[in-house]
Amino acid sequence: MLVLLKPGTAEATAIDVMTRLRMAGLAVHRTEHEGRIRVAAIGDLSAVAWDEVKDWPGVESAQKLSRPFKLASRAFHPHDTILSVGRAAIGDRRITLMAGPCSVEGEEQAFTIAAAVAKAGATVMRGGAYKPRTSPYAFQGLGEEGLKILRRAADAHGLSVISEVMDSQQVSLLARYADILQIGARNMQNYALLREVGHTQKPVMIKRGLASTIEEWLLSAEHVMAQGNQQVMLCERGIRTFETYTRNTLDLNAVPVVKELSHLPVIVDPSHGVGIRNKVAPMARAAIAAGADGLIIEVHHDPDHALSDGAQSLFPNQFDELVAQIRTIAEVVGRSI
Amino acid sequence: MLVLLKPGTAEATAIDVMTRLRMAGLAVHRTEHEGRIRVAAIGDLSAVAWDEVKDWPGVESAQKLSRPFKLASRAFHPHDTILSVGRAAIGDRRITLMAGPCSVEGEEQAFTIAAAVAKAGATVMRGGAYKPRTSPYAFQGLGEEGLKILRRAADAHGLSVISEVMDSQQVSLLARYADILQIGARNMQNYALLREVGHTQKPVMIKRGLASTIEEWLLSAEHVMAQGNQQVMLCERGIRTFETYTRNTLDLNAVPVVKELSHLPVIVDPSHGVGIRNKVAPMARAAIAAGADGLIIEVHHDPDHALSDGAQSLFPNQFDELVAQIRTIAEVVGRSI
Amino acid sequence: MLVLLKPGTAEATAIDVMTRLRMAGLAVHRTEHEGRIRVAAIGDLSAVAWDEVKDWPGVESAQKLSRPFKLASRAFHPHDTILSVGRAAIGDRRITLMAGPCSVEGEEQAFTIAAAVAKAGATVMRGGAYKPRTSPYAFQGLGEEGLKILRRAADAHGLSVISEVMDSQQVSLLARYADILQIGARNMQNYALLREVGHTQKPVMIKRGLASTIEEWLLSAEHVMAQGNQQVMLCERGIRTFETYTRNTLDLNAVPVVKELSHLPVIVDPSHGVGIRNKVAPMARAAIAAGADGLIIEVHHDPDHALSDGAQSLFPNQFDELVAQIRTIAEVVGRSI
Amino acid sequence: MLVLLKPGTAEATAIDVMTRLRMAGLAVHRTEHEGRIRVAAIGDLSAVAWDEVKDWPGVESAQKLSRPFKLASRAFHPHDTILSVGRAAIGDRRITLMAGPCSVEGEEQAFTIAAAVAKAGATVMRGGAYKPRTSPYAFQGLGEEGLKILRRAADAHGLSVISEVMDSQQVSLLARYADILQIGARNMQNYALLREVGHTQKPVMIKRGLASTIEEWLLSAEHVMAQGNQQVMLCERGIRTFETYTRNTLDLNAVPVVKELSHLPVIVDPSHGVGIRNKVAPMARAAIAAGADGLIIEVHHDPDHALSDGAQSLFPNQFDELVAQIRTIAEVVGRSI
Repeated sequence: MLVLLKPGTAEATAIDVMTRLRMAGLAVHRTEHEGRIRVAAIGDLSAVAWDEVKDWPGVESAQKLSRPFKLASRAFHPHDTILSVGRAAIGDRRITLMAGPCSVEGEEQAFTIAAAVAKAGATVMRGGAYKPRTSPYAFQGLGEEGLKILRRAADAHGLSVISEVMDSQQVSLLARYADILQIGARNMQNYALLREVGHTQKPVMIKRGLASTIEEWLLSAEHVMAQGNQQVMLCERGIRTFETYTRNTLDLNAVPVVKELSHLPVIVDPSHGVGIRNKVAPMARAAIAAGADGLIIEVHHDPDHALSDGAQSLFPNQFDELVAQIRTIAEVVGRSI
Repeated sequence: MLVLLKPGTAEATAIDVMTRLRMAGLAVHRTEHEGRIRVAAIGDLSAVAWDEVKDWPGVESAQKLSRPFKLASRAFHPHDTILSVGRAAIGDRRITLMAGPCSVEGEEQAFTIAAAVAKAGATVMRGGAYKPRTSPYAFQGLGEEGLKILRRAADAHGLSVISEVMDSQQVSLLARYADILQIGARNMQNYALLREVGHTQKPVMIKRGLASTIEEWLLSAEHVMAQGNQQVMLCERGIRTFETYTRNTLDLNAVPVVKELSHLPVIVDPSHGVGIRNKVAPMARAAIAAGADGLIIEVHHDPDHALSDGAQSLFPNQFDELVAQIRTIAEVVGRSI
Repeated sequence: MLVLLKPGTAEATAIDVMTRLRMAGLAVHRTEHEGRIRVAAIGDLSAVAWDEVKDWPGVESAQKLSRPFKLASRAFHPHDTILSVGRAAIGDRRITLMAGPCSVEGEEQAFTIAAAVAKAGATVMRGGAYKPRTSPYAFQGLGEEGLKILRRAADAHGLSVISEVMDSQQVSLLARYADILQIGARNMQNYALLREVGHTQKPVMIKRGLASTIEEWLLSAEHVMAQGNQQVMLCERGIRTFETYTRNTLDLNAVPVVKELSHLPVIVDPSHGVGIRNKVAPMARAAIAAGADGLIIEVHHDPDHALSDGAQSLFPNQFDELVAQIRTIAEVVGRSI
Repeated sequence: MLVLLKPGTAEATAIDVMTRLRMAGLAVHRTEHEGRIRVAAIGDLSAVAWDEVKDWPGVESAQKLSRPFKLASRAFHPHDTILSVGRAAIGDRRITLMAGPCSVEGEEQAFTIAAAVAKAGATVMRGGAYKPRTSPYAFQGLGEEGLKILRRAADAHGLSVISEVMDSQQVSLLARYADILQIGARNMQNYALLREVGHTQKPVMIKRGLASTIEEWLLSAEHVMAQGNQQVMLCERGIRTFETYTRNTLDLNAVPVVKELSHLPVIVDPSHGVGIRNKVAPMARAAIAAGADGLIIEVHHDPDHALSDGAQSLFPNQFDELVAQIRTIAEVVGRSI
């Protein structure tokens, strides 16, 4: 249920309302919008006589949150969530650019790329240290060594770090090195992992599963938020369809849909989304035109020798050029870089 | 096979080459690029000794056209095809805007909308007179009466007309009223219909089938072109996926992919593609950012009373606003409106 | 609306009811079940005061037909439809076996295969004379010559003939040679064609479109039935998914679902459905176990030299063996061969 | 690479061959077939001169294992894998029946159902104690308490236990109570979890992900097997398509395909696969007819009050009846119950 308090309700009264709901066994979350406190009460609703709640002191109305996701919904939290990460304010008027190699491969690679993407305007560096690979025999990432390199390379250029966490047992390790914890598409419904990152206070980026509906994706965000961590953003990275020419089918329709249903920032990953280098820039431009809050893009100075995903990585100069194009498109939709 | 002639080959020599190929039972098509004649020879290739063709007078090389579509491929026809229709040059630097109601419903509706979309910058008016409806009991369109109204409304505002032809027996009727013959998504592989429009000299727009691969779509274009009509454009209008929040999943990845594989213009239909009014503008902007040659958009002055697809039709003022946004995005990708 | 008449209602009274409905502008269809006349009234329902209909002489009740398909629904027509075609009673307790080559290629081929499949227990011979081919350059079938051969080969062995009709202009030609008109998957929503076969009195088999929902498929049947031809059967032949190992994904779930929603017979085509010879028999067995009313299977005595679909055609002896297996499975589900 | 040794090669010679391959840095696995030792050597193949391997003592041939899955492939391991679990021999001539409630809900429920399914012929009892739920607010299972109940109920009726493990940290707990560790569809590509169960010696059943290709599914099995645990079986449980009438689309095509590509047993879950009670039996029959090695079916004595998935659970008497039907179908495909 969504319980709206009257404008100017005293804090003590608000606490009273929330206490009564908690005592009925409900989980209670609070936000504010246009000077009014909004309380989401989640759980077995049968213990409360909802008809009478509007007569409680301070309460204006109580209405059902009809979507299965509650904390992630705009109904509960009408204004856009903005996540502060280093120099980035993700979800703000300014477009966030995250860039870097698919996998961290070594000191030189990471520093070279960090320098290039920082110069082009990125504020977050991406780089995998633990890689989810379809084959057990493929390169699995450098592990903690990779995280250390990534951290140093990012720090040297004033960048924040995003990196994927693949298992509940890895969360504390990742949290030591990364500023944003990435949940990969294959793990979007790994609920033990979602719960674990929900117990940290690190921003979390949840990639959409290959065949996940938008509702399921928002429910995965809800799994994190229900544990207390409200710093969640979503990342569209392509769905699986019948088409075989592209690696995946980047679903930009999801951008305006999620922006309407939810207050969480939406990032687009055109690199995995389409999977072909010369299609990355068109889809990145399109993502911003569709209203995305940011991009996460694979950039590599020597993609032909990359240990993973070289064929979809941009050269640094291509990334530069793309940023210039996006700058103008951002203005059309009331944003900037 | 693609037979490239040497620069400056005399016309008589070129004709000689083509005649020899025809006498071997092959269908022969010709184009020119950078001062050189290019000849596509299609059919049972076994009757020609291809090793020896490069020794024929005027021939520079003979190479296999590896894709199953031949005339539609960039390999055969490297430069962009531009289709002249009234004031529009579809595929040219200038973005083409097609707009109008889903169905023609009457004189007043058609004239009101024609005036609005012409003023906003559209050069082609869309409007269905024969509607493919999933249910036999739904409104099937006004038929020829609708075509007459559409023609008059378009003419009154200097617009060209695009309208759907649903059956091989309707082609000559449609050709009398429309400037562009539209093949609907459900008929993308109605080969009798494709052949029939291939025998006209009218521009044809082929909508992508709901579950058609890009290759199949280009092969449908090839069905038309193989009959002699090279005036073909393609229209992405959303594919079917597991997602139920949107009506279809507009696949913008198809835009840069088709532009690479083929020389044919690509139009995007965000109205059917996403099917929700307030998502049409974001997807339309994204389409242009991704490199589309034009848009076809449903506009209705009174969508709540539209006989079909009202929920996805833009109001005229929304269309105006969209055109303004697109103007700037077009410049980013080297285009204009 | 579904108007149920009381048991024992006099014919004159029934006609009265139907006339009143027709005069209100509705299309009226009639069936009988358990001694009671059932009337489906379809169209703009607003002209009738439905509350009062139950007070009309002879009327027991009037209720909404909630599904968008009406004549195809079990609600209107509770008992199974059985289509008599030559020696076959399709939809009856007995499983119908249709078999033959993908394309008719010549006299010898057709007669050899006809003999083999008749001996094995088939009662209907399949064979394409007009082939819908993705490429305009592939073998398109022998046309009318093929139909003549097919007819003679079938007649020589007491078989009925099923063959595909691809265009509204071909219907009368096909109807001259074939006993069952097949609508191919690509034409499932070719409404002009559906209307045309709806005007014949030939049984029609509608293949499910590659990405068609079950509801759309039943609505295509409704398009035929609304024209007056109630002799319709459905054919599941595989849908398109992301899987690339098989040609299509035969969707056997559709069998029990359609049998519940509709009274029309359901045939399964495992040859196109899975597209790999040694997977055809397992899927054919599974289809019967799932409750299908029949099978349509590609059989070729020399598949390596077939002009189309050789890789999925069974050898005659494999078809024999399959029929033996199916005989036992049929008994498990209360059927026979 | 697959290194085949000559028939009758002495054990010492075989060990020699394997040692040489290991010393080249390769992982080495061994199986036997028709009296011959077969050695799979996996890893960076460049350190061995493969042309010369056939001249090593005891070696007959060395050939590439072309599929990305190696240990899971029939090329390496031509005979069917049979997993011994209590009274079941999964993959053997005898069909394995696993049945039980979706979730363990309490002592009485578990014992009642255990008795019923044991009597009907099941040898393995299913029951969830940790449930992967799309919503964080839905019933998440009884946890360890549920496992204890499940174990006692199964033991009381001579049944083995299968239950889902959702996280790498849960593996040792699950292994204490369950005989088979189930990897759910959402976790099919949770590689940390796959590795962890790969370190146990418990049989593992891997459910196919909702949008996983057959190749990816076999690669998930490979992830387990590469850790040393060869006791793996696969479970088809429905893929996600555009169809909304059924919960999922049970893909029976996968059964014959996997049986050809791999030696691992294939179980089918029609309960989740179709998700509608009266469609479970038809699809279960079809699965056996298609060649499945077993079924896993939800059975509940009071499905209307089940805490999860009641709408797809069979009543015990329906399960009885189904087993009787399957008995006959099993014989048709050379199996028994």
